[in-house]
Formats: sequence, C-alpha cells, structure tokens
Amino acid sequence: MIADMQYDQSGQLRHFLTIEGLAWETLVHILDTAQSFITFGEREIKKVPILRGKTVVNLFFENSTRTRTTFEIAAKRLSADVINLNPSRLSTSKGESVLDTVKNLEAMHTDLFVVRDAHSGAAFLIAQHVPPHVAIINAGDGRHAHPTQAMLDMFTIRQYKKDFGNLRVAIVGDILHSRVARSQIHALNILGVPEVRVIAPKTLLPTEVERLGVQPYTDMRKGLKDVDVIMMLRLQLERMQGTLIASEQEYFNLYGLTEDKVALAKPDALVMHPGPINRGLEIASEVADGPHSVILDQVTNGIAVRMSIMAIVMGGQSERKAS
Amino acid sequence: MIADMQYDQSGQLRHFLTIEGLAWETLVHILDTAQSFITFGEREIKKVPILRGKTVVNLFFENSTRTRTTFEIAAKRLSADVINLNPSRLSTSKGESVLDTVKNLEAMHTDLFVVRDAHSGAAFLIAQHVPPHVAIINAGDGRHAHPTQAMLDMFTIRQYKKDFGNLRVAIVGDILHSRVARSQIHALNILGVPEVRVIAPKTLLPTEVERLGVQPYTDMRKGLKDVDVIMMLRLQLERMQGTLIASEQEYFNLYGLTEDKVALAKPDALVMHPGPINRGLEIASEVADGPHSVILDQVTNGIAVRMSIMAIVMGGQSERKAS
Amino acid sequence: MIADMQYDQSGQLRHFLTIEGLAWETLVHILDTAQSFITFGEREIKKVPILRGKTVVNLFFENSTRTRTTFEIAAKRLSADVINLNPSRLSTSKGESVLDTVKNLEAMHTDLFVVRDAHSGAAFLIAQHVPPHVAIINAGDGRHAHPTQAMLDMFTIRQYKKDFGNLRVAIVGDILHSRVARSQIHALNILGVPEVRVIAPKTLLPTEVERLGVQPYTDMRKGLKDVDVIMMLRLQLERMQGTLIASEQEYFNLYGLTEDKVALAKPDALVMHPGPINRGLEIASEVADGPHSVILDQVTNGIAVRMSIMAIVMGGQSERKAS
Repeated sequence: MIADMQYDQSGQLRHFLTIEGLAWETLVHILDTAQSFITFGEREIKKVPILRGKTVVNLFFENSTRTRTTFEIAAKRLSADVINLNPSRLSTSKGESVLDTVKNLEAMHTDLFVVRDAHSGAAFLIAQHVPPHVAIINAGDGRHAHPTQAMLDMFTIRQYKKDFGNLRVAIVGDILHSRVARSQIHALNILGVPEVRVIAPKTLLPTEVERLGVQPYTDMRKGLKDVDVIMMLRLQLERMQGTLIASEQEYFNLYGLTEDKVALAKPDALVMHPGPINRGLEIASEVADGPHSVILDQVTNGIAVRMSIMAIVMGGQSERKAS
Repeated sequence: MIADMQYDQSGQLRHFLTIEGLAWETLVHILDTAQSFITFGEREIKKVPILRGKTVVNLFFENSTRTRTTFEIAAKRLSADVINLNPSRLSTSKGESVLDTVKNLEAMHTDLFVVRDAHSGAAFLIAQHVPPHVAIINAGDGRHAHPTQAMLDMFTIRQYKKDFGNLRVAIVGDILHSRVARSQIHALNILGVPEVRVIAPKTLLPTEVERLGVQPYTDMRKGLKDVDVIMMLRLQLERMQGTLIASEQEYFNLYGLTEDKVALAKPDALVMHPGPINRGLEIASEVADGPHSVILDQVTNGIAVRMSIMAIVMGGQSERKAS
Repeated sequence: MIADMQYDQSGQLRHFLTIEGLAWETLVHILDTAQSFITFGEREIKKVPILRGKTVVNLFFENSTRTRTTFEIAAKRLSADVINLNPSRLSTSKGESVLDTVKNLEAMHTDLFVVRDAHSGAAFLIAQHVPPHVAIINAGDGRHAHPTQAMLDMFTIRQYKKDFGNLRVAIVGDILHSRVARSQIHALNILGVPEVRVIAPKTLLPTEVERLGVQPYTDMRKGLKDVDVIMMLRLQLERMQGTLIASEQEYFNLYGLTEDKVALAKPDALVMHPGPINRGLEIASEVADGPHSVILDQVTNGIAVRMSIMAIVMGGQSERKAS
C-alpha cells in the first residue's frame, strides 16, 4: 500500500519513502543510475544539468547537518537550486502546520522535497498530500526508515562483492531503534541476499525479529562467523533508556567491533558504518580506519546514490504535470 | 518625499520601500511584469537569466524564514547569487552598526538588498545611504510597510477580478499594528478601488483611520456585507498588549472568518490571507481551505511579484552605474 | 616546514595557511591575479567560470558571518558551488572528530575547504591529512594567522602606494593576541617594506617582538611619526583578561586613532582596519569615515584577493589528481 504510493500510474518511481515493497528492478535501476554518476566525482566538471531549473527543498524538521549536506551537494551536482529549511515542528494537532508549510512550498512551484523528521511516517504524510508533479524523498523518519542510506550501503556492497546472491551479511547494534537497520534489511532481502543476521543484546532486538527475514544473534562472535559484510549501526545513546545497555564499556566489550572480532568474519569481509562513528563505543579506531573498512566509500557513494534517486523520481515529473 | 527616494532621476523605480506615493503606472508595471513570470512556474526550465552575475543579499535583521524563502526562490529563478544574512541588530546608538554592515556589503559589490527589520524605517535608512547602483527592497519594517506583500495581494485580486474600478474590499484584523494593512490600503487606493473597509475591534483601529481613505467597521457582519474581497490579517499575539483583545475565543467569535460570515459577502468573494494562518484564531479551517480561498494563489503569485520587483529595480542599474 | 606544506612538488601553491615562509613571487602572483579580478566588481556580469563544477566548503568551527560571507561571495563569483558548515568542535581528544568531519567531506569529492577555528593550527592539522587534490585556505586560526586578511591589506597598500620598497608602516593595537598582525608583519617583511612598527601598551606586545622584524613603540604619537600606512587592529575585548588594559576610555586616549594622531603621519598616509570597527574604541568615527581611510577599499579588495587565492590553490588541482 505504502509501496504503491511510491509508483505513479505508469509504474515509474515518483516518491522514495521506504525500501519495503519496492521491486527488485527499481533497486537495481537506482544502483545502475548511481554507477553512471560515480565517475563524476573524479572528473574536472562534476555538474550535470539534469535538474537545471528545478528547486529542491531540504525540509529538515529534525536537524542533521551531515545528511542535509549530502543531499545539498547531490542536488547542486544535478544543477538544481537548493533551499535549506529547518522549520520547527509546531505542536499543533493533526500535523496541520506541517502540511500548511508543505502546501506553501509547493505553491511556490518547488519540485522535490527531501524530508527528515523525528516522527515515523512524516514523509508519507507529506507524500499523501502533494500534487503529482512534486516528489518526496525520505531522508529519515523516526524509527521507521532511512532508505537512501540503505541504498548507498547496497551500492557499496555491490561495488566490492558484485553479486548479492551468495552473501552472508550481519547487521550489528541497536536493531530495535534503528531506521537504518529496517531499511537495510528490506533492501538486502529484495536484492536476494540469502542470509541476513542481526546481532544485538536482547534488549535491542525487536520481538519476533525473524519475521523480517533475518536470524537474530545475541553473541556477536557467533553472529560474525564467516560473514561477508559487517554493517555496524550507530549507537544513539540519546534515543535509549538508560536500562537498555548496562554501560558503554560493557557494550563495547560485547558488541563493539574490534580487530579480533573482524577476524571471525571472512578474510575479505567488508566493514560498514553509516556514520558518524563513535570511536571506541561501537567500533574500534583500528577497525574504522583499517583494511576492511569501506566507511569512506559509503560517503562517496552516498552522493552518487542520492543523485540517482533524485534524478529518477524527477524523471517522470513532466509527464505527470502534463496529465 | 519618501516616494521620491524610490525613483531615480529618469523616473525609474530604483528602490521599493513603500507603496505610499507610487504612481498608478508603477504598480501596473509591476503587476504586468509579474504576469510575464507567472507562467514560468509551470514550465520545465524555470530560470531566467535576468539577474545573472548579480548578488542579492537577504538582510534579515528580523528573522522570517517564510518571507526570506520567497525572496531566495525569486532571486534564484532570476539566476542571481543569493547571500542570506541574519545579523543581530547591535544596540548602538544612531543605527551606526547597521549602516556599517550595509557599507561593507556594498563594498563587496553586491547589488540588491532585501531588508527586513522589526523597526519601522530600517529600509529607508539604508536606502538613504547606498550608492546609486545598489537597490533596496523592503521586506517588512516594523509596523510601517510590507509592500511586496501588498503587491502580491493586488496581483491576486486582479487575477480574479480583472478590474479594480468597481470593487468593495474589506481588510479584517489588527489594523493598528499591521504593516501589511497599511501597504494594502495604499495599493488599493492607488489602483482605484472605490470602497475600502477596515474591520477590527476599536482597540485595534488607528485613531482617525478614515484619513487613510478607508471606512472603519467594528461589526464584522456589517463590514463584510456585499464585499468582493475579504483580506484577513494575521493576528500577531506577540505584538499586542494583553488588554487589546479580551480572549482568543471571543476574538474568533467576533472577528474570526467563518463560513457564515463569508456568506454575507458577494457569492464570488475572494478570501485572502498573507500567511501563515492561525487556524481557528482569525480564520476557520473550512474557510482557509474552502472555495473562496485564494490563499495558496497568493503564495504562488508572491514568487512572480517578487521576481518582477527585483527585475524592475535592477533594470536601471547599469545606467545609474555609468552616470 | 609549514611553508613547505603549502607548495606541491612542482612548486605550485596548493594550500594557503600562513604567510610565513612564502616566496616573494607567490605574494606578488596573488596580488597580480587579484588585480585581474578587481574590475569584475564593476562589470555587468561578475561571474567567471574558473571554479565551475567545484565545491567549496566553508568549514567554520568558529562562527564569523562576516568572513564567511566574503569567501562565499568570492567562491560564487568563480562559479563554484558553496556549502556552509558550522560544525561544533567536539571536545574529543586528539582532534579526531574534526578529522573525521574532514575525511567525510573529502569523500564527498569536495575540492576546497576554507577553515576557520578558534584554535591555532587547525588549518594545518587538516592540511596534513587531506589528499593531494584537496586544497585548504586558512580563514583565521586562533592567535596564529589570518593570511587572506593580510593579503587584502597588501593589495590595498599597493593600490595606493605602488611600491613597497620605501614605506614606513605602523600596526596599532593588540599585537599580542592578533592573528591579523602576525600575518601582516610576515607579508610586509616578505614584500620588502623597510620599516614596520608595532604600537601597543607593553601588556599587549609579545616579548622579544623585535625578532619578528619590527620596531616596538608604546607611545603612539612617536610611533605614528611620518608613517605611510596606519594599520589599526580590532580591540577584541572578549579575548583579553581584564587587567591588560586599564579602561576603554584610557585605551582610546592612548591608542585610539584620532584626527590629531593621524596628523602626525605623512599627509597622504593610509588608515586601514580589518573590520568590524569599534567606533570610539580603537578608532574615532571621523577617522574611519575620513579622507585617509581606505577601510571600505579593503572590503572590496577582499573579494578579489580571496578569488585570487582560491583560483591559484585550485590551479594545480587537476595535475595533482592525475599524478
């Protein structure tokens, strides 16, 4: 149902809100399009005129300079004009003020909203109320989804591992609260990864997590055994109740990624992290900066993947406007 | 005198500070030029190169993300570079620090300042001190004027009513403190609207308001009778002393715009509001979103009207520089 | 050693961190290149495509709207895309978080970082860790250096005095804490100014200041005698301990620049100030706005000089990337 919202009548992607329910072909199309942009980072002139004359609004109800910057750079490389907004989320009932903000922006003939909000479902709510020619990209909504992050992770995995069909992937950390984990799991499943593990203390695992198509582990050493990819999550202490983990030191001992734990994975295993990393909390510096780490590749790929998603959701815009 | 400041020696508009004292021809020229931009919102490539190579500075001593965004979008659609500044208004005597800020910006060869300030007269003070090739647009100064808002209102009225010559217009709300109302009244008078009414509790009406060329009403039901246009003002509680209105509920009962009150106006009456609307305070949601409302048209037109005013005040720039 | 870091293997300037140790030819090249841009401020179309497709990041750990704006305008006039960041300087040990921020930005294939920080050495630390194709410009680091300010000062002096070889220059104010003074002294020495004086109360003079190649004066009237250029510093009360100066009034009496003190200098002496000026504290308004003042020329020249430095450090970028 939500996935249906993401496609227009001709089957083209018009919003990018969640990985859940997207077709395998859609994800591959995003990755392939990103591949065509990835060389631009190396070229002298990096701009392409694909979104020239378009206005992209970074609508960040939750502040995140880092994520906002990646979308701003991606949009400018596509030659779009960019407006950065950090509206306060007024505490009116029924989210009306958010929709009034959005209606005003669309009345200004802006074209693409990149929405970030601390509340799950914000991007969906907005997508339900915009006219056909306005596209919405979810840049993270509460605990729900962070689909562009998941796609850049998939891009990075494909870059090194070529084929998703024979991989064993472990996601480590606060699975319970992580919108990143949720989007990664959907993407890995759709792209055909046969074995996805989640590793966390019991208090940070959702109940019945197996339903998501993953295998839970509470013992990190067992969970990392022979995996091809280790996807660390950021420990967001501010989102946790104090009782969920005993202490930072104990957490690091049990679930922090250290060199000896990496050694349990396959010799050519990738170490990934969405950033910003908490050195010494969920990952040791030696690992973050070590030979398995592709953390900075993820950052580089994040620009290309966001360019790709922006270009794709805007691709059908003119036809929708005409109809 | 102030109006004189707005024209250069050849009679071209060089600043846009207040509607008061402008010629009928000037207002019509602004509306006609805006009309030429209004289609751009619908086209694929929305940018025009009119201000290419120019630097527009949004100089907002008073914070207003909403208004700033409209000027930023308008300037970028004209291909200008935009610098957003929110300088704190240092409490030095004689406004010297403001003028030092302005002198510095003009020394950087910036071309157009969009000035917003909580103090009446700020844009004038600045306009008195800039060299001939720098243009000033007043984006709202204290209780004094908000002329671009009034012009987008006029544009919206003309869009629907074609002719100003036989209209009855009512402005409703805090007339006493409203820079918007002041600018609207001047514009309506210059454009030849034969009957302009202002509707407010006595405490929110200026003394001798008739001198402005309007008819005051304290009974909203009488004031709305047979009008063609209802222009609501925003109730800015933060600018009022607590004693000016009895309570929000009582205010809404007496002066809030509800469907039954709209029914007193002409059947094709327009409902306007400068935004952001306080739903349930000065306007009922059913009216704001109802068939008479042109509130979102105002937002759309605001971009075109601001593009128009920017293009016009910059139009004579090169000649003034040469002289 | 630090100067070596600023040149690449072929002897081209690749970072601009400090004046100290730069070659005379480099400074003259910067001034000459700035001269080629200075006319652009007068032309209709001010943009040049030199940095088209490049991304400039204003990385301001210390907030300075004024300086940031000059770099933003300069970068946009070179057609670069500009990202403004004000990251908080996290209090982690070893500056690791700053370097993680920088590594992330360079992974996004940004090209030029303009770095401002309250800590001396920040720009150096960053320059030591970036790959060959990323350039760093120091926009002020603690008490250490503010080299772009010094270069715009040199440009302004040359504009009026043509030749550095026969000048007597006095720098007045808080020499002890001033990064501006330090950079000015290096630049004046390298460009061959035969006599550089520093004027300050003893408490605001570094010990053994003569080693920098300057002559110290505590009596301003003696120090200004027959000088060609008076370079005032900004009195930054927030950086001083209360005991360093007795009172603002006494400071102004002894070291504030007044018309009668200017009269001690040569008749065609220049009065300079890096801004923003504290009127009546270190400089009288009559002097700041008077016939000797070139303070607003400095602002204008600051854009051209920053364009020059940006263009030069990016000039060798493609070769370094290829190698």
